[in-house]
Amino acid sequence: MTGDEAHMDHALRLAARGLGRVWPNPAVGCVIVKDGRVIGRGWTQPGGRPHAERRALDMAGSAARGATAYVTLEPCAHHGKTPPCAEGLIAAGVVRVVSALTDPDPRVSGRGHAMLRAAGIPVTEGLREAEARQLNAGFLKRIGQGLPFVTLKLATTLDGRIATASGESRWITGPQARRAVHAMRLSHDAVMVGSGTALADDPDLGVRELGAVAQPVRVLFDGALRHDPQSRLGRLAAGAPVWVLHGEGAATQGWEATGARLFALLQSGGHPDLRAALTALAAEGITRVFCEGGAGLGAALVRAGLVDELVLFNAGRLIGQEGRAALGPLGLEALRDAPHLRLKEFRAIGEDILSVWRFS
Amino acid sequence: MTGDEAHMDHALRLAARGLGRVWPNPAVGCVIVKDGRVIGRGWTQPGGRPHAERRALDMAGSAARGATAYVTLEPCAHHGKTPPCAEGLIAAGVVRVVSALTDPDPRVSGRGHAMLRAAGIPVTEGLREAEARQLNAGFLKRIGQGLPFVTLKLATTLDGRIATASGESRWITGPQARRAVHAMRLSHDAVMVGSGTALADDPDLGVRELGAVAQPVRVLFDGALRHDPQSRLGRLAAGAPVWVLHGEGAATQGWEATGARLFALLQSGGHPDLRAALTALAAEGITRVFCEGGAGLGAALVRAGLVDELVLFNAGRLIGQEGRAALGPLGLEALRDAPHLRLKEFRAIGEDILSVWRFS
Repeated sequence: MTGDEAHMDHALRLAARGLGRVWPNPAVGCVIVKDGRVIGRGWTQPGGRPHAERRALDMAGSAARGATAYVTLEPCAHHGKTPPCAEGLIAAGVVRVVSALTDPDPRVSGRGHAMLRAAGIPVTEGLREAEARQLNAGFLKRIGQGLPFVTLKLATTLDGRIATASGESRWITGPQARRAVHAMRLSHDAVMVGSGTALADDPDLGVRELGAVAQPVRVLFDGALRHDPQSRLGRLAAGAPVWVLHGEGAATQGWEATGARLFALLQSGGHPDLRAALTALAAEGITRVFCEGGAGLGAALVRAGLVDELVLFNAGRLIGQEGRAALGPLGLEALRDAPHLRLKEFRAIGEDILSVWRFS
Repeated sequence: MTGDEAHMDHALRLAARGLGRVWPNPAVGCVIVKDGRVIGRGWTQPGGRPHAERRALDMAGSAARGATAYVTLEPCAHHGKTPPCAEGLIAAGVVRVVSALTDPDPRVSGRGHAMLRAAGIPVTEGLREAEARQLNAGFLKRIGQGLPFVTLKLATTLDGRIATASGESRWITGPQARRAVHAMRLSHDAVMVGSGTALADDPDLGVRELGAVAQPVRVLFDGALRHDPQSRLGRLAAGAPVWVLHGEGAATQGWEATGARLFALLQSGGHPDLRAALTALAAEGITRVFCEGGAGLGAALVRAGLVDELVLFNAGRLIGQEGRAALGPLGLEALRDAPHLRLKEFRAIGEDILSVWRFS
């Protein structure tokens, strides 16, 4: 690995700290290096400001003169709430910039790189671009397709069951796996469940421990608004963001009183349209959605081609075919129509196995 | 790791080569070391003779005088088809023996170690005993309980399905995983399927490639003898061992003509008793059984507490709840009754994940 690559990897690791906390902004990392030493590090702060470059430049101070800046995304070039980062890098006397990715935001889109070059600063583009794309897959999908990146979580026995016939599911996975789920919630902008899971488990979808300050937006997908406004989610809505996606014509009165934000969606085939639901979330700035079930919502998302990544926890238990299936009906005609996923990573976590799969 | 441990690990790796080929004997490994150099190596040969010690001594020749022998199982002390290995080690002039495990065979059971000590050879017992027990779990279970070690294989999608609703299952896993299954068949004395799988897939259960010389015994568990004697298994029975376990009163005529060996079993609750079936296999000398399904036989084995290890292949596909379940009914009342398995090992294999779990 070259020095450039090692520094960019460092910047990518910093960038990842912002995931789930910076929407609608991208999570960016920046490392400033002089004479082989890191003199400044920064990542996009919660809420999206300050930007990574500003933080790294502030840390480096006057030492930034003559240094190289590594950024995981093209520095911004537009005057918004703060002066553009490209200007900041120029003013600080940085003599070289290495960037992983051109910002697809139409307000930037090459202008940041151009501004640096116009000031005589050589720019190396595209280093670790694939990793940077993956890191900001949510931001890029929202800008490019108007949809969020969707992660579907399944926590199953070795025979693919998520609960006993009577609905008992606490706990199939071990404490380490459940803690990892909380960390995953924290790296997403929103956590979503369907009405079946809401009714069965009365979840609060919150992140406990892990030093969580802000919570992800809690999203309930509930066409007929069957879930009780007096549920945990309903009671939480007064003090934290709870968004409820329901079909047109559902009786909203009870939920309106909770403080939850309601989104009325067009129905298709008796159910609110899932693509419309996710489009509505993206329009609000949501870039990453973590779907925790249930089997019906998960299958509907898969059928609609709306899932990007599947996170599977395999626990060393067996329930048998009376148990509840991990995924609802997919309506396949033949095996060749079965969605194909590629293994991204896997590891043991406590007594369970965690594997992450990408839809291709 | 000490030198003793390294040599015993070597002997254990050699021993593993015999698995599936030496029944009813244990798979043993032997390494003979002088002045830190390995001068003889041996493992139990197909069919069980010659023994590992004999092979290693023959390789070492006269250099064995003054050497140390590492054996994964106590050397035999009885005169059978060949002179006892303990005598062979004494005659060769070995001056120290390190063994992993006392042989539970009542004809040996400490007498091998005693014979060596009586000849003035110090014996270190119990080095790597846990590993040696695991390696010979089949032999030990047959001697101790009159049952074979049973490995249950499941090859599922990420949502726990083994076939589409119409029964299509070729192929869910990739070519590397399927090749690994052939290697697993080869390390078991017998490969078993139930009648449902036999009828659906008409399998031949053979090991292709991998330089296989002898094939494992093919076992069909078929209470009512529903499977066709003209099937692949029926046609193979003329030239290779095919054993058919059926219920009393089934019409056996067609199968008798194939050359297959038939075992009539007592019925209980309309089905032949599975414990009796496995007891019959153990009585014939079978120590390791690889069960490849289907869902009904797998679940019945789990319910009866007869499975020792579960091998799971997870393929990056999704089929949905219309698909066929990996495991039939277990009849659980509550989640706490769900069988608990411990993770033994896991790795990526091609595009799939292989994990091995032990019933505790």
